[in-house]
Amino acid sequence: MIDLRSDTITRPTEEMRRAMYEAEVGDDVFGEDPTVRKLEEKAAEILGKEAALFVTSGTQGNQIAVLTHCQPGNEVLLEEDAHIFYYEGGAISAFAGVQTRTIKGYRGQINPHDLKKAIRGDDIHFPETGLICIENTHNRAGGAIVPIENMCEIHQIATDFNIPVHLDGARLFNASAELEMPVSTFTQHTTTVQICLSKGLGAPAGSIIAGDQDFIKRARKWRKRLGGGLRQVGVLAAPGLIALTEMAERLKEDHVRARRLADGLKDLPDVEILNEVDTNIVVVDISNTSNSVEELLAALKMQGILAVPFGPTTIRLTTHHHITDEDIDQTIKTFHQLLQTV
Amino acid sequence: MIDLRSDTITRPTEEMRRAMYEAEVGDDVFGEDPTVRKLEEKAAEILGKEAALFVTSGTQGNQIAVLTHCQPGNEVLLEEDAHIFYYEGGAISAFAGVQTRTIKGYRGQINPHDLKKAIRGDDIHFPETGLICIENTHNRAGGAIVPIENMCEIHQIATDFNIPVHLDGARLFNASAELEMPVSTFTQHTTTVQICLSKGLGAPAGSIIAGDQDFIKRARKWRKRLGGGLRQVGVLAAPGLIALTEMAERLKEDHVRARRLADGLKDLPDVEILNEVDTNIVVVDISNTSNSVEELLAALKMQGILAVPFGPTTIRLTTHHHITDEDIDQTIKTFHQLLQTV
Amino acid sequence: MIDLRSDTITRPTEEMRRAMYEAEVGDDVFGEDPTVRKLEEKAAEILGKEAALFVTSGTQGNQIAVLTHCQPGNEVLLEEDAHIFYYEGGAISAFAGVQTRTIKGYRGQINPHDLKKAIRGDDIHFPETGLICIENTHNRAGGAIVPIENMCEIHQIATDFNIPVHLDGARLFNASAELEMPVSTFTQHTTTVQICLSKGLGAPAGSIIAGDQDFIKRARKWRKRLGGGLRQVGVLAAPGLIALTEMAERLKEDHVRARRLADGLKDLPDVEILNEVDTNIVVVDISNTSNSVEELLAALKMQGILAVPFGPTTIRLTTHHHITDEDIDQTIKTFHQLLQTV
Amino acid sequence: MIDLRSDTITRPTEEMRRAMYEAEVGDDVFGEDPTVRKLEEKAAEILGKEAALFVTSGTQGNQIAVLTHCQPGNEVLLEEDAHIFYYEGGAISAFAGVQTRTIKGYRGQINPHDLKKAIRGDDIHFPETGLICIENTHNRAGGAIVPIENMCEIHQIATDFNIPVHLDGARLFNASAELEMPVSTFTQHTTTVQICLSKGLGAPAGSIIAGDQDFIKRARKWRKRLGGGLRQVGVLAAPGLIALTEMAERLKEDHVRARRLADGLKDLPDVEILNEVDTNIVVVDISNTSNSVEELLAALKMQGILAVPFGPTTIRLTTHHHITDEDIDQTIKTFHQLLQTV
Repeated sequence: MIDLRSDTITRPTEEMRRAMYEAEVGDDVFGEDPTVRKLEEKAAEILGKEAALFVTSGTQGNQIAVLTHCQPGNEVLLEEDAHIFYYEGGAISAFAGVQTRTIKGYRGQINPHDLKKAIRGDDIHFPETGLICIENTHNRAGGAIVPIENMCEIHQIATDFNIPVHLDGARLFNASAELEMPVSTFTQHTTTVQICLSKGLGAPAGSIIAGDQDFIKRARKWRKRLGGGLRQVGVLAAPGLIALTEMAERLKEDHVRARRLADGLKDLPDVEILNEVDTNIVVVDISNTSNSVEELLAALKMQGILAVPFGPTTIRLTTHHHITDEDIDQTIKTFHQLLQTV
Repeated sequence: MIDLRSDTITRPTEEMRRAMYEAEVGDDVFGEDPTVRKLEEKAAEILGKEAALFVTSGTQGNQIAVLTHCQPGNEVLLEEDAHIFYYEGGAISAFAGVQTRTIKGYRGQINPHDLKKAIRGDDIHFPETGLICIENTHNRAGGAIVPIENMCEIHQIATDFNIPVHLDGARLFNASAELEMPVSTFTQHTTTVQICLSKGLGAPAGSIIAGDQDFIKRARKWRKRLGGGLRQVGVLAAPGLIALTEMAERLKEDHVRARRLADGLKDLPDVEILNEVDTNIVVVDISNTSNSVEELLAALKMQGILAVPFGPTTIRLTTHHHITDEDIDQTIKTFHQLLQTV
Repeated sequence: MIDLRSDTITRPTEEMRRAMYEAEVGDDVFGEDPTVRKLEEKAAEILGKEAALFVTSGTQGNQIAVLTHCQPGNEVLLEEDAHIFYYEGGAISAFAGVQTRTIKGYRGQINPHDLKKAIRGDDIHFPETGLICIENTHNRAGGAIVPIENMCEIHQIATDFNIPVHLDGARLFNASAELEMPVSTFTQHTTTVQICLSKGLGAPAGSIIAGDQDFIKRARKWRKRLGGGLRQVGVLAAPGLIALTEMAERLKEDHVRARRLADGLKDLPDVEILNEVDTNIVVVDISNTSNSVEELLAALKMQGILAVPFGPTTIRLTTHHHITDEDIDQTIKTFHQLLQTV
Repeated sequence: MIDLRSDTITRPTEEMRRAMYEAEVGDDVFGEDPTVRKLEEKAAEILGKEAALFVTSGTQGNQIAVLTHCQPGNEVLLEEDAHIFYYEGGAISAFAGVQTRTIKGYRGQINPHDLKKAIRGDDIHFPETGLICIENTHNRAGGAIVPIENMCEIHQIATDFNIPVHLDGARLFNASAELEMPVSTFTQHTTTVQICLSKGLGAPAGSIIAGDQDFIKRARKWRKRLGGGLRQVGVLAAPGLIALTEMAERLKEDHVRARRLADGLKDLPDVEILNEVDTNIVVVDISNTSNSVEELLAALKMQGILAVPFGPTTIRLTTHHHITDEDIDQTIKTFHQLLQTV
């Protein structure tokens, strides 16, 4: 199978498996797992923050950030397709009791002017603006890179209004690799950040949140309440450390392949590539074909290719470290066979 | 003072005061206040629902509706300027744990096509769409009347997806009076409704929510939790009953005056009336004047006229039963004196 | 009917009705109701706090106190029969997200030693102790007065651990009248307090919470979220002011009558008075009679006497300003007729 | 070091490490991790339930159970030292919005009579009793086994009142091993159950919750919201499967050692063993020694022995699969050296 559904499906490398096998572990609830500590220290360093915390997933990292930054009755500002709003089951309202206020963005970027207008003044009728969230790269914008200039402007406004900024950096390493800039160039414009070890970086599971010492101390307690305090979790931290330190380099290959895939599909008459392919995601509109999304996905599957729906008439294709040049060729060829009407 | 800040400022009429003085009361927590019962029965009848409940404010009525309809982790769909979203302190997220998903409307109306797209499918990443809210008349759209056809279409979609519809009808009687249609013509397209007795209808305080018997039974418990279960509350129900049954007729006068006010202002060169004046609200953009909102409001106040800010460069003027034809004349004259540059 | 169910059933006096009729009112959401302001200022003065806030009920006042003092994940310490725990629908957990930790008391008093043991240390597994609640007089302890010495000791511990103390003083004026001490003698040992205007004091509805300026400012916002921000609420504040300033004196009469009632019942062979009658509540155990609670209440009702169940084999009788000496005589006589076996 | 702090500190066995290394994995959010599926099926079978779900910790499993069973404003009944109440940061109130009502038990058992009294009737003032929790073995009762008869009686009452029962079976396998009864003998008396793979069973991390199909379907969504939906989590499921199927047998050895440890300490003049040692926990009261808990723990540590505080004058010693007979001998000897006054 050529599995283009998501970079989350990446299986651990042989080196990661060996690291799990050999991991030095302890009880992390007692703060005694040396591998977790090493991962957290390394992550803090790379992310340019005082401290970091291993969490079991990106969703958990984002939830903890909101719980730690906000009070019930606060309002959180985010782009209208942000993962935290779109894909996390409404959890920040269910758990942190905050109201979501979304802003329509362009390629995942929030216009600073729109952001400013959305910040609440001091009025008994208003929730207090408690947090601003940025997502980079932006999943539903097709893996778009939010420019550092945009992040900087948002951060400036946030600072003026004394509002923290959280970065959902589930795929931040893709932006960093593509722009050939360290991740800390991005995270310097945020109060806290979450990054995933389990997407393009290939770890079996786990994410990192980072911020200042006080934030991480309080975040640790919210992690415990969410059931994210684990015991000999060095067995996950060990492959996570490899993901963090050795897998970022190769993400550019995924981007090259994604762009080649998009190029190979764009001349299909009934297909439209909806996104500029900044990183590893290709969003394809098939509304002009005679197929429904379900039909096309089924036909692709029969030819050994997996993708996911991404809207009523769109599908998403994602490259990652199991996808080879040959897979791309084969995928392009299959699309042409299925959709090309002679 | 000519107080055009809000129809909430209306003081009770002599008849209402007398009704309070004479009200037959009992302990409503024991269900024994005859005046409250009479009000609730009358309200249910007028609103075309099985049952009704007196609550202390419009915000409380809306909060109870959301708490009763929804579960934490649900998502509520509402127009992006809806009172429930904009003016209730983020309370539905703080208390009911629901996520707000807003849809940009036109004159307070949600486009049925946009609504349909915003309803969530069955996916482990998604909150469940738990409630659709309509606001009629729509405050921030300048008292705009949401057409019955629009309500009907929304209700049809909601029914297809098995989602309840709540109507924030804080000013529903204005729509009803203006269109000369009974309020039940509107409420037939909703599962539940909240109406305010204390705005144009002039009661000192209080609102009504209405729905089916089971809804009201459960709503009563949420009202108790919110601290809205009162004792000899017949003293509020008595003027409320007058508001409900005798004050709706005269709302048209407020609308006529509001339109006359708008007409009198619109030829001022630097002023723009932002809304079509369906009912009793006039929204004035003063960005082309040389004054800030604060400055203009202060100048008006010195001339004995009160209004409220309604955005960075807009003010809102609202007519109600204390505002006379002379007040309108005086207000128009004052605006011209203040803003007319010869 | 001789209605001994609760002091909440008291109907407003003629003077209160007249005050409602004549009340000078304004829009309290704009902070412009002069009668509310007068009530809040007077209440703050009497309660010995910087500021006070009118709320619609005791439950609402208590909920606001918890919402304002606490964060989700906090733990609140209270006596195991406290109203906030027992009778408020679990609302403090539903809204404020706090865990209740109850302590078995003696006549409503929490043993300071037990309190100290229940305060949580700093541990990642523990909720933070966010609030200590006292109830005085204590309803389920039969209107028992919690001694000032006990309040003082609790306050001392709370201060040592930097935990606020909230007093549910729904019937604090009964304690004050009985001990002939100003209410401020009690409230000096608490951070905040809630008192009811609608129980023994006889107002139709309403309570007061009091604390420092910052607390009241934040409480006001939570009141708005709960839907407790009302408009021309001077119509409730006016009788409330009479309740607050003129009705406390006469509470001792209720206590005298309650004790006389208890004396008149205690020699009935099958009846046991469960409480020392400190104030206006008499709790009667009827387990040795041949009647169930439901049967006895029904039989009393047929004789024109109303009481409430207070447990599987107990009933509660409460005196208040509609209950006369003759009512007491009649009640004693009726009990004897119903229960005396010759 | 002889680490008697907790059975949570157990490091994975060589076989578990190998299983991680070789684990067949997939993306479990897509439901495609074969090892997770195998673990969940096996767990459901062993626990006698329709379905099971892997979660990252016991706390997460318990939280999910409460979120899935309850609505905000419900009340949960649990023993006053239950882990869910005592050690989970107040999370069930913070997240599920439920009020905790605790009942003082005997050796972890709730008296059925007390339980029945604590169930709420239908009253507008009362939270609805939404869940009853049992803990077996009971941690703070010193690993006490709650007898099956007690569980059966509680279950009967719960069934009569139509209330679900959740079993916190973090150490259920200890009870099962000690009584030589299958775990399903216990779980037949509960609606749902949580068991830990990471305590005595020795897996590096993870727990299981089990119940009927509908419960598990809804639980899966709450797990996602909590951030417990992981990707290639077969790497944790693989050692978990070994824990579940191969490690239960040996738990009796831990119990024998714990009893031998208690026997060896009990004749120390100033030491009292507080619990009957049913399983692997020994609770030691040292209030009659001249040492504080901190001092004694420090002295033990210098001699190579680790334990944890379990109250102001008590410590807890826990046996597990790294503790040998020699470790027990050494611990007894060290206590005698430290505490024996000649």
